[in-house]
Amino acid sequence: MILGNDPILLTPGPLSTSPETRQAMLRDWGSWDAAFNQMTQTVCTDLVEIVHGENDYVCVPMQGSGTFAVEAAIGTLVPRNGCVLVPNNGAYCTRIIKILQRMGIAYVELALREDEPVSAAAIEDAFNGDTRITHVAQVHLETSAGLLNPLDDIAALCQRHGKSLIVDAMSSFGALPIDLRKGGIDALVSASGKCLEGVPGMGFVIVRRSVLLASEGQSPSLALDLHDQYTYMQKTTQWRFTPPTHVVAALRNALDRFIAEGGQPARGARYQQNCKTLVDAMKTLGFEPFLPAEVQAPVIVTFHAPKDPAWRFADFYAAVRDAGYVLYPGKLTQVETFRVGCIGAIDANELHNAVAAIDRSLKKLGVRVR
Amino acid sequence: MILGNDPILLTPGPLSTSPETRQAMLRDWGSWDAAFNQMTQTVCTDLVEIVHGENDYVCVPMQGSGTFAVEAAIGTLVPRNGCVLVPNNGAYCTRIIKILQRMGIAYVELALREDEPVSAAAIEDAFNGDTRITHVAQVHLETSAGLLNPLDDIAALCQRHGKSLIVDAMSSFGALPIDLRKGGIDALVSASGKCLEGVPGMGFVIVRRSVLLASEGQSPSLALDLHDQYTYMQKTTQWRFTPPTHVVAALRNALDRFIAEGGQPARGARYQQNCKTLVDAMKTLGFEPFLPAEVQAPVIVTFHAPKDPAWRFADFYAAVRDAGYVLYPGKLTQVETFRVGCIGAIDANELHNAVAAIDRSLKKLGVRVR
Repeated sequence: MILGNDPILLTPGPLSTSPETRQAMLRDWGSWDAAFNQMTQTVCTDLVEIVHGENDYVCVPMQGSGTFAVEAAIGTLVPRNGCVLVPNNGAYCTRIIKILQRMGIAYVELALREDEPVSAAAIEDAFNGDTRITHVAQVHLETSAGLLNPLDDIAALCQRHGKSLIVDAMSSFGALPIDLRKGGIDALVSASGKCLEGVPGMGFVIVRRSVLLASEGQSPSLALDLHDQYTYMQKTTQWRFTPPTHVVAALRNALDRFIAEGGQPARGARYQQNCKTLVDAMKTLGFEPFLPAEVQAPVIVTFHAPKDPAWRFADFYAAVRDAGYVLYPGKLTQVETFRVGCIGAIDANELHNAVAAIDRSLKKLGVRVR
Repeated sequence: MILGNDPILLTPGPLSTSPETRQAMLRDWGSWDAAFNQMTQTVCTDLVEIVHGENDYVCVPMQGSGTFAVEAAIGTLVPRNGCVLVPNNGAYCTRIIKILQRMGIAYVELALREDEPVSAAAIEDAFNGDTRITHVAQVHLETSAGLLNPLDDIAALCQRHGKSLIVDAMSSFGALPIDLRKGGIDALVSASGKCLEGVPGMGFVIVRRSVLLASEGQSPSLALDLHDQYTYMQKTTQWRFTPPTHVVAALRNALDRFIAEGGQPARGARYQQNCKTLVDAMKTLGFEPFLPAEVQAPVIVTFHAPKDPAWRFADFYAAVRDAGYVLYPGKLTQVETFRVGCIGAIDANELHNAVAAIDRSLKKLGVRVR
């Protein structure tokens, strides 16, 4: 029996959006119509402004999930004879390697632990150790553990060495400060349904105009060709292929709310408060975060699973869901964990309530945390 | 100033959906949650049933527009050393050729006029003329003009010659009868936002299970790998990458409405009535359809533009839009035309009203049709 509200999603996209954002999907839009195409244009302009790319960067929206936009960025911007360095501290870094393997593009993996941020020094060593490297594909915030990599240091290093930097900013865009004016970043990829609090269905790439314009004909895919998408849109104002019109309308609303909230600083501060509330309250139950505080991004927190033999994630998940909160399984390869997101149209009250629901669920299941 | 309702979309996707279908997007869904994944599963089951593929076929959903699913089908199912025959009578056939060119897959183009359906005999001649051909990529309903190609004849021929047939059924799926039990079709591609009357944002491929299972590792793209999407979903019940949750929920509702209406026969009959109403009423204004009636599919109708020097499509479009109806520009290369869709959550009354709005707009603009 369904009573009351849907559960709150404490998952890092899809996440809980505001009712107003969902209501923006109640209208149908023609993909050829000026009203819709102006909406796309304002979305792109706002996305570029969030990361201060006004002068040199353009935004290319892409249908599909965030991974589609990551693959589009790599396929369009890396020449067939390029070589990509991939610092790897989680599943989303590994996914980039899989994309490169499919495309037959050379790569160098810089293997790291799942709780170990990459350092600029390690990347510099890799540059010195393999002169083939032309590009770096860096995940800013590795959602597998919730780990923050030092983007500013990496960007400065890439600029100094003349390497082209492509950043997967899927879970950081809008929540953490990113300033393209500092230099060193050629492309930044994210999606509608993460920290911007839209619904899923559209990714985007903020890319240096000169780099994009030099990439004509390079993509092995028609659908995922950023250059073709951009030049067609410049010429016609329209998307090349059918756009996810309702998803775009929801993102327009979500961006209005983002701006009204106070932009990235305010969004980041709310998530930081959510994260602190979550971690503090979980600690009082006996849970320990997997990551040290200094590398924990305020987006998703990985907790060690209880050692109690009565613990079963599936039961725990179901009990907490029935109590109103949807959690996420762990994504680490070595230790048993689960994850709780702190992003979406929620504030610290929701995290307090979620931890109370976790507490009740554990008691009901007879699971001791320590 | 905005008064009253949004305009009705007489465009072949995005189109006007029912309010209930849009309201299905008012809930957020977790992509890991059983409730959402069961919804995906029922959507896939229903899609396979619509074309009678229960025994040998599976449905693989794909994020993005319909073109993404077409590219996914070609990239996953055609081996690198395959050769694809593409009968070409419009822009969507040409798009398939572009996809093949990007992938570096050999192809043979069978060039046709935009008002000329392909014949099985012409395809057989092509088979005999080029023994390299392993696959046929056939657009069922060429939306450029609204032209219907004889799918049953082509499927029977492919079966006889042992060629693998991939069908772009983007604008026909759900509206026109397709029966996979007749044999000859290996894959059928369509999307959420066409004749099923969902919102855009998701494509799908109904593919012969044995053909899909033999395609492991063949796709040059990770995001667009149908085999990987399918096997992951079989193993986990989940989508590989973030699904467009709200779009899936809208499609679930749209399928419920499709079934309640009476399935493909009823949906096709409504569109046929819409099309007849449109063409008859436009003829009374003096407009002539571009296509002969016998090859006109009941989905979108191309009309010759008036010869009057006062005619400008942009002005006409804007006037009709202000009167409540969004039309579509022509997509033909040789003659000046415009298009009017007859699909979506509309009936013949809407088409009568649309033609009345067209009449008023022409009078206001001082354009004579003949």
